[in-house]
Amino acid sequence: MSDIIRIGMLGCGTVGQGVLRILHETAGTIERATGHRIEVVKVLVRDLQADRPGVDPSVLTTDPEEILGDDSIDIIIEVMGGVDPTHDWLLRALGHGTSVVTANKQLLARHGPELLAAAEEGGSELRFEASVCAAIPVIKVLRESLLAAEIDSVMGIVNGTTNYILSEMRGNGMSYADALAQAQDLGYAEADPTEDVGGADAAAKMAILCSIAFHTRVLIDDVPYSGIDSLQSEDVDIASELGFVMKLLGVARLVDDAVSVRVHPALVPADHPLAAIGGADNAVLLESSMVRQIMLVGPGAGGTETASAVVSDVLSILGSRPGSFLGGALADAGRPMAADDALESAFYLRLEVADEPGVLARVSSVLGESGVSILTVLQRGEGDSARLVMILHRSPEAQVAEAIGRLAEMPEVTAPPVLIAVVGSGEAPR
Amino acid sequence: MSDIIRIGMLGCGTVGQGVLRILHETAGTIERATGHRIEVVKVLVRDLQADRPGVDPSVLTTDPEEILGDDSIDIIIEVMGGVDPTHDWLLRALGHGTSVVTANKQLLARHGPELLAAAEEGGSELRFEASVCAAIPVIKVLRESLLAAEIDSVMGIVNGTTNYILSEMRGNGMSYADALAQAQDLGYAEADPTEDVGGADAAAKMAILCSIAFHTRVLIDDVPYSGIDSLQSEDVDIASELGFVMKLLGVARLVDDAVSVRVHPALVPADHPLAAIGGADNAVLLESSMVRQIMLVGPGAGGTETASAVVSDVLSILGSRPGSFLGGALADAGRPMAADDALESAFYLRLEVADEPGVLARVSSVLGESGVSILTVLQRGEGDSARLVMILHRSPEAQVAEAIGRLAEMPEVTAPPVLIAVVGSGEAPR
Repeated sequence: MSDIIRIGMLGCGTVGQGVLRILHETAGTIERATGHRIEVVKVLVRDLQADRPGVDPSVLTTDPEEILGDDSIDIIIEVMGGVDPTHDWLLRALGHGTSVVTANKQLLARHGPELLAAAEEGGSELRFEASVCAAIPVIKVLRESLLAAEIDSVMGIVNGTTNYILSEMRGNGMSYADALAQAQDLGYAEADPTEDVGGADAAAKMAILCSIAFHTRVLIDDVPYSGIDSLQSEDVDIASELGFVMKLLGVARLVDDAVSVRVHPALVPADHPLAAIGGADNAVLLESSMVRQIMLVGPGAGGTETASAVVSDVLSILGSRPGSFLGGALADAGRPMAADDALESAFYLRLEVADEPGVLARVSSVLGESGVSILTVLQRGEGDSARLVMILHRSPEAQVAEAIGRLAEMPEVTAPPVLIAVVGSGEAPR
Repeated sequence: MSDIIRIGMLGCGTVGQGVLRILHETAGTIERATGHRIEVVKVLVRDLQADRPGVDPSVLTTDPEEILGDDSIDIIIEVMGGVDPTHDWLLRALGHGTSVVTANKQLLARHGPELLAAAEEGGSELRFEASVCAAIPVIKVLRESLLAAEIDSVMGIVNGTTNYILSEMRGNGMSYADALAQAQDLGYAEADPTEDVGGADAAAKMAILCSIAFHTRVLIDDVPYSGIDSLQSEDVDIASELGFVMKLLGVARLVDDAVSVRVHPALVPADHPLAAIGGADNAVLLESSMVRQIMLVGPGAGGTETASAVVSDVLSILGSRPGSFLGGALADAGRPMAADDALESAFYLRLEVADEPGVLARVSSVLGESGVSILTVLQRGEGDSARLVMILHRSPEAQVAEAIGRLAEMPEVTAPPVLIAVVGSGEAPR
């Protein structure tokens, strides 16, 4: 490929605009890593006048021939959706040797093998990471990292809408109808949620994943599915009492070297890795005797997340610059190391103190003088001594260290203070 | 590269033997996907006589020159470990244009930038997925899928030994010393566990991850670390009461575009994704505004797991066959679909029944006649009616369906039975 990669894009909605923004913002990184500059030369839209902030109007067109008929285009990005006319258009592009990146789950689940055959014949590449679980790189991991790992089972929470609804039913005791309404209010579910709650969306994704995991041909019609729309909340509750969590699962596995794949509500034990996947998150659990269990977790939807997956597919087609690793960035120093006094953290603090009046007040005032405030206190007397445990609000670490130094010298403090960082709460550096 | 790829391997311990076995067993898959046949032409060992089941003795040598001095070798796999003489040997190979796959964490964390510079100069490739978290493909995901995702934080449980010890301290109330002794008994900890429990092992891995995530140069000496060896079990317990879980974490993040990275014991809220990672598992949580949170989980060690990562690096250097996707496997039918009567599952069954004597006995006998046995029963009376909830042992699904059909027709059963699959327990298909 030449130094400049010419891209045509079909569609320019939320995902398409995200793709343009990411390509623009990360152009330097992309050029260093791949040796290529990317130029989006044409973007097919239905309405030239629609509001698309930041998009150069001169690249817009309403004529698909300006992209499909342009042999100088190296890669077509398809984010318009739908099976028709997308199917014919992409077949034509792939057959001509133009590589395609698509986010189109329905198209892949219905016509994947045909499109892949066209790519093979045309000597082009077809990539579709964004079609399943948005930015979670499950297709790349299956296709590349685990190509020779002989996967024998793929289990996934591959629909965020249903996972959100089930999490609310379990966590907050909501009915299915109330949880669905809440999901719709928050934008996790569409006005017509049938595709999601009925299981068809998950079935399309499982057809794609299962094809790649087992190196075989599975179409959406091969995947029986049922959804969560007829689940009763009492079953969610009873399951919970018995130590299970209700999930809508895609389950694909090899049974005597034949493929079994389906989508249905299922109970998983509370200590199972998929049980902990809450909210609208997706997760895919891959199993093989070689790698045991590998799980990938993340947001399974979202415009920027999906756009990020599209861009990673473009980079994957370009490949890395020969002999480079991130364009040699690691050989340079790159960024500086952060100075210690720039860091903040929340902390757990345990103090063993003499059990006498006013100790808590004196400890608190030492912390306060250093500008460190207290979120939680737990105090327990044990004979002559007492134990103070505190969760400290996020503060500059230097201030916390100074306060701890002073506390250690207080006569009432009878043992060295124990200080442990708290990470991953709203209080902590994320 | 020619059709046949000639490989030299340095070292032939557990990981090396695993690599040879995987390359042999998956040769067909590899050839279809990459277009190349792999031939391991020489393997450097210290002792020609050691027991290496399944390894062809004619490829063994004790002379490194037979590999380093052989220009016909395309890729060197380094699984001998150690920094010296490995460092000099790999520099020489990379400088000559021979690509290298290594599992050597200490070498990378100390000399990664220098090795990468040699690769860039020699036009060769250096891959090291196996050096961090074994088969969890975190390096590939960071380097390829998330190359343009502008990662701003990497948090990881990257040492399985310490995670096992902390999980036992929390779950079973063990002391640090007892949990360590148990980890040693089970092979999760070495006789001298200092590298693991003191945090040095995690620091080396974080140096590597952080370099790639932030496209910058971070060596092990840049990573301050402390371990779990001085933790007191009362802090694990109190943290647990307060809703936190103790983990040994690697925490790397950008602070005003500077790099902060360190390894230390930390408390994470019980509902944080990393809190659920138990046993000897590893997990890496990647954050960016584009992809939000993506987490990869799996076994962070193990001979076959590490060997699998080495093989995936070899495949990554070969690249996929132009115009192919899994060698066109998806365009063929590949494997058959499993027949429904081949499937087994465990189930949750809820029955609403009339509250009269003998109902449970009659329900149980219907299940028994179909060969379906019961793991758990929960019975609750509510006025004239009662509710029976059962977890059914794993059984052929056809037999369960038959039993449910008969139960639905019993006069005592007052509502359609509710049947939900149980997945992921010892009782279920995994």
